[in-house]
Amino acid sequence: MPEKAPDIRCDIPSGINHILDGDVMAGARLIRRIEAGDPAAARILGQLHPHAGNAFIIGITGPPGAGKSTLISALITVFRKKDLTVGVVAVDPSSHKTGGAILGDRVRMQAHAGDPGVFIRSMAARGAGGGLARATRDTCLVLDAMGYDIIIVEPVGSGQADIDIGTMVHSLCLVAIPGTGDGIQSVKAGVLEAADLFVVNKNDLPGAQTEKLTLENLGAMRSSAPNDWQPLVVSTCARTGEGVDRLADLFLDHRQFMKENRVLEKKQTAQARDYFTTLVRQMVMDRIDPWIDRQVGAFLDTAAQQAEVAADPYRAARELADRLTRSLGEPGSVDREGE
Amino acid sequence: MPEKAPDIRCDIPSGINHILDGDVMAGARLIRRIEAGDPAAARILGQLHPHAGNAFIIGITGPPGAGKSTLISALITVFRKKDLTVGVVAVDPSSHKTGGAILGDRVRMQAHAGDPGVFIRSMAARGAGGGLARATRDTCLVLDAMGYDIIIVEPVGSGQADIDIGTMVHSLCLVAIPGTGDGIQSVKAGVLEAADLFVVNKNDLPGAQTEKLTLENLGAMRSSAPNDWQPLVVSTCARTGEGVDRLADLFLDHRQFMKENRVLEKKQTAQARDYFTTLVRQMVMDRIDPWIDRQVGAFLDTAAQQAEVAADPYRAARELADRLTRSLGEPGSVDREGE
Repeated sequence: MPEKAPDIRCDIPSGINHILDGDVMAGARLIRRIEAGDPAAARILGQLHPHAGNAFIIGITGPPGAGKSTLISALITVFRKKDLTVGVVAVDPSSHKTGGAILGDRVRMQAHAGDPGVFIRSMAARGAGGGLARATRDTCLVLDAMGYDIIIVEPVGSGQADIDIGTMVHSLCLVAIPGTGDGIQSVKAGVLEAADLFVVNKNDLPGAQTEKLTLENLGAMRSSAPNDWQPLVVSTCARTGEGVDRLADLFLDHRQFMKENRVLEKKQTAQARDYFTTLVRQMVMDRIDPWIDRQVGAFLDTAAQQAEVAADPYRAARELADRLTRSLGEPGSVDREGE
Repeated sequence: MPEKAPDIRCDIPSGINHILDGDVMAGARLIRRIEAGDPAAARILGQLHPHAGNAFIIGITGPPGAGKSTLISALITVFRKKDLTVGVVAVDPSSHKTGGAILGDRVRMQAHAGDPGVFIRSMAARGAGGGLARATRDTCLVLDAMGYDIIIVEPVGSGQADIDIGTMVHSLCLVAIPGTGDGIQSVKAGVLEAADLFVVNKNDLPGAQTEKLTLENLGAMRSSAPNDWQPLVVSTCARTGEGVDRLADLFLDHRQFMKENRVLEKKQTAQARDYFTTLVRQMVMDRIDPWIDRQVGAFLDTAAQQAEVAADPYRAARELADRLTRSLGEPGSVDREGE
């Protein structure tokens, strides 16, 4: 493939080098552009992409009040003792930048403010849910390219993440609170099935032991093939740090297990394919949106068609959508275009 | 246009008549199908459409803890005294059906459980944000066709509605809590500019008077043309019912004002056009999604293209998206198809 001339409208000095050197200001600037949906950011991300793929990406999810932020802060401390650098992406699908949750989380993690081996970013709500998922994934890529060993993704906000972090992390951890069976019920569908580690946090609360057993049974029910990772349950008290060493070790064990069984590679390949589809879908949508507006405008230009819409907007919309998509061609049309 | 043969796979006896008669069971069943994203529901909605358009649709929004549900419950009481029937749609963009917020709200509104003139529905989270907005709008249509005089839409969940209720209601009310300037800052962008009524609830809290003045200044700054509705600020205490009579009257005043100035008609027309565009967009997307999956699958069939994606997924996605959208044709293609 012929090399194209670089077209990077980029205010980052010396292109991507500052980011690859781990320059926090350059990284923060690029992340802001990602958040703002700046399409030029994708060109820089494309250049960063070959330099990424070394970070171990962890997802920490669970109902509100489970103490996720405190747990992450404690995990950072343990990983730092092991001389691993840590990037954190806190994703809030519902709040604005000024919302309480994110500020609260930042306060909880402020213990690490002076540590150059720790970089914490909050992703605020954006227009589309898909946009937020893409921005989160892209931010992970930036932190990865910056050289952080561990990246922790945390959906904050009101319990259920609108984004499906299971599709962007290597190891998924579900944090539960004792005695709130309900809490677990309220986590996003699929997380219970996908979690690699379960944490019963606030293990000094009554019901901690029962909660642990419930989750252990749940995990045991799930394991099938002998080479599958058996999900484990850890009791922690994030406030005092109890059990957090073990949790950090289990994350690293899980990484080791996945490497030895070539599961990590397969997972990365599947996620990369999934993400490519997401990118194509979003880019197609971005191009189609204004086109649909024009087509609807043209449709509503005649009185007869206005009357159709007034009589039954659902049928009129269906007929117009059918007509608009008829030009999409058959499966395989990409091949036939002969590129 | 020739009449098509009806194609209604519908478990509602006698077609739409039960809904038009206000049958709560038939209405609830249709709303469940809307929530489930059943495409057949659209055919029934299309038949209901000509019978709707009589309800006055109110939106109640504001930060969490503002007491919106208690206020709505008190408003229902006042509207019922005026012999107006009330439908409520509580929209939760973040929680599952079993989530606390919705159950809590239902409890708060339970005072009206035995009243046949009141119908309360919670819309739980669904896949896409756009899907939820459409389901909410469609549910309003059902309640409208069922004959409710007033429909109240409340985004519950964590403060900011993911859906833009401003585009689906006739009168928008923002509920603030005294002394939390922050709370107001956190409401969805555009609500401050769009609100027709402001409520300072919990007016027994310190700071209520200041909050009221702030909002009055904000409202005064906004009014421009002499025939514009001047946004008003009401102090309420939803718990005791204080000020709620006045709020209900102001809603009805606003409706009267809009009718006299033909603003209501214009607003309904604009919203109908907006909704038609939304319907077309969503239906096009529904058809395009599997097509994109097939196209990406075909693209990734060759090793050369896999290598392109591995090198720079952003560029590869951009090029594929460009190619896919090229087949969609030029603006104006609807006209040229000559239907």
